[in-house]
Amino acid sequence: MSHVLILGGDGYLGWPTAMYFSAKGYEVTVVDNYFRRNICTELDVGMLYPIPTLPERARIWHEKTGHEIKIIIADLAEPEVMRSLFDGRAIYQWAITPKFTGTPDTVVHYAEQPSAPYSMLSYKTANITIHNNLIVTNNLMFAIRDLAPETQIIKLGTMGEYGTPDIDIEEGWLEIAHKGRKDSFLFPRQASSLYHTTKIMDTDLLWFGVRMWNLRVTDLMQGPVYGVETEESLVDERLRTIFNYDELFGTIINRFITQAIVGYPLTVYGKGGQIRGYLDIKDALQCIFYSSLKPAKAGELRIFNQIMETFSVMQLAELTCKVGQNLGYNVDIKHLDNPRKEAEEHYYNPTYQGLLELGVRPHYLTEETMLQMFKIVEQYRINIRKDIIFRGVRW
Amino acid sequence: MSHVLILGGDGYLGWPTAMYFSAKGYEVTVVDNYFRRNICTELDVGMLYPIPTLPERARIWHEKTGHEIKIIIADLAEPEVMRSLFDGRAIYQWAITPKFTGTPDTVVHYAEQPSAPYSMLSYKTANITIHNNLIVTNNLMFAIRDLAPETQIIKLGTMGEYGTPDIDIEEGWLEIAHKGRKDSFLFPRQASSLYHTTKIMDTDLLWFGVRMWNLRVTDLMQGPVYGVETEESLVDERLRTIFNYDELFGTIINRFITQAIVGYPLTVYGKGGQIRGYLDIKDALQCIFYSSLKPAKAGELRIFNQIMETFSVMQLAELTCKVGQNLGYNVDIKHLDNPRKEAEEHYYNPTYQGLLELGVRPHYLTEETMLQMFKIVEQYRINIRKDIIFRGVRW
Repeated sequence: MSHVLILGGDGYLGWPTAMYFSAKGYEVTVVDNYFRRNICTELDVGMLYPIPTLPERARIWHEKTGHEIKIIIADLAEPEVMRSLFDGRAIYQWAITPKFTGTPDTVVHYAEQPSAPYSMLSYKTANITIHNNLIVTNNLMFAIRDLAPETQIIKLGTMGEYGTPDIDIEEGWLEIAHKGRKDSFLFPRQASSLYHTTKIMDTDLLWFGVRMWNLRVTDLMQGPVYGVETEESLVDERLRTIFNYDELFGTIINRFITQAIVGYPLTVYGKGGQIRGYLDIKDALQCIFYSSLKPAKAGELRIFNQIMETFSVMQLAELTCKVGQNLGYNVDIKHLDNPRKEAEEHYYNPTYQGLLELGVRPHYLTEETMLQMFKIVEQYRINIRKDIIFRGVRW
Repeated sequence: MSHVLILGGDGYLGWPTAMYFSAKGYEVTVVDNYFRRNICTELDVGMLYPIPTLPERARIWHEKTGHEIKIIIADLAEPEVMRSLFDGRAIYQWAITPKFTGTPDTVVHYAEQPSAPYSMLSYKTANITIHNNLIVTNNLMFAIRDLAPETQIIKLGTMGEYGTPDIDIEEGWLEIAHKGRKDSFLFPRQASSLYHTTKIMDTDLLWFGVRMWNLRVTDLMQGPVYGVETEESLVDERLRTIFNYDELFGTIINRFITQAIVGYPLTVYGKGGQIRGYLDIKDALQCIFYSSLKPAKAGELRIFNQIMETFSVMQLAELTCKVGQNLGYNVDIKHLDNPRKEAEEHYYNPTYQGLLELGVRPHYLTEETMLQMFKIVEQYRINIRKDIIFRGVRW
């Protein structure tokens, strides 16, 4: 049986990914240091509903499905913690069978500080983001090199690494002709937040490791994800993933729906012409799964653009308005001075074929999809705190 | 009068740069945490001759020239240390006038772990390199943004950031045409050590800061430097810069000369066809100086390729042989299995015009130059430890 190790398994994608693989019969180990939820407490960032601890989630999952997800609570920026996951020194905080599962076949690396605005709050949060994201990635790379060279790494990057160039965005790589000669390179990257820049640095680091040590790495350039429920969380609502709706940790579609429900005008930065690629959380899980089925070759840094369709911010605001108004909400759009330094009108033409070719079957963002999200968020309406939605983090 | 702040002012280039500006009448502040010399002790890496502490060097310099170089011993990875250099909280360990000099006009940023083999020793030294190099750069960037937005940064990068692409290497930037559209990007970078990769990440980080906050940054893609004496160290031999001759911290030409003198065969990795760009330490100082005279504009990341000529490793070995043999040394060349993963035969055609256009007048590597280096190193022959020259760090 295959063993999947999920780093950052308490997060928005981490926990659903753990259940997804577990439901398919994989052995699953999850590691997290609760960075995200601790920061949510520290910064008074609201969650739509409370999230059980990881051992409690694993216990509920086991009770309902009979599957075991082993849990380790530890900081992966400590190299010995990372190495313990491969050499058998790992200590489980929760497990049915406390014996070491063995070397994982696949590592899914989500263990990064994931918020652009958080990384821009101050030099302190910038340093935390740089240190955590790069040291965890480096610890993983060295642990794989030294202890599990055949294990594949699946790593979350971001479409934000590319920025908004005036040329078509390819999937990670570009052949460049210059003065009569040619060579292939990583597609040029220039991001618009410090968080996104750490993802560029991760790519630099992993590309180095792949060339030097023949690692097998899939780097997924993901767009913003939306959604709450996945197939597996239907089992018990306590298994729903963490849902933030504030400026720091709430991704745009989740946040807009929450704002619509409590009558907080949809906050559009500037003209709202910023175009990005988006995907449903169910598709994010499919992307990881299909990537894992067909690993990158030894010495290959395989890059996919993990988005299913593109929208401008205004298109998303208008769709939220429409669906909200059909439900009887009075939804306004409010244009704010853009607190970020980014182009509000720009060329954007990314390629995203690779994951479809692997077998991913997209869920698109329809009125129906959004309606279902409204229905879930509405259940927790009483928990929504209007005062923490907007914070005004400036770049 | 202009004020130059030198971060990493105890190093091979840092201290000579401090004297160079001081001799020209600049106010100079030097900061260092002695990382380099502490590591030399910890790893038992020999120095050709002992180096006085920074306060002692500053005292000798003041005694001989009447110029003051203020000294701060502290770790710039601590953000409050970095910020104290701009807001007046700085505490000098040595100064004639202990009053805060004021905001610097120019910051020369050398405060990085500078050794490729050190960065490859283990995951621990890899982490130290990543943490130190990126956090110091980030602390600098935020301090400038918050406290001294007009101050220019001059930062040492490395030609190694580019690797050895199959296309001509331009000075930092490249216009790319793709599918009928065009845009300008950082020249593609892919380095062959972890240390060099941190310099790519520095470039990513500074390019972000320049775009977001209109910083003024000159990033110098420097090749390996050789030499001992500079104009200013002629004043007193105790002012000579740190000189390592081992595999970890000794740059190739300095190391070869030392090996020739003690009859240790010149260690050529593989065929020795690796071509790189080199420069004399006197020219490295000129490059910093001329860059400082004409700062980058606000919002400009100006990149120069800081080399004066290119050589293959074999050409350097052969030159060392020739000069050594003329002096009566019996110099052998020994080809070792390459411990690094790098191309031993490759295309290499870098541009390096920008610094010449600013006014730099190169010193080239001639037999005479090398002869003078032999003469200095010979004085310390008794200090040279053959056993620490080669260490066999494998990538």
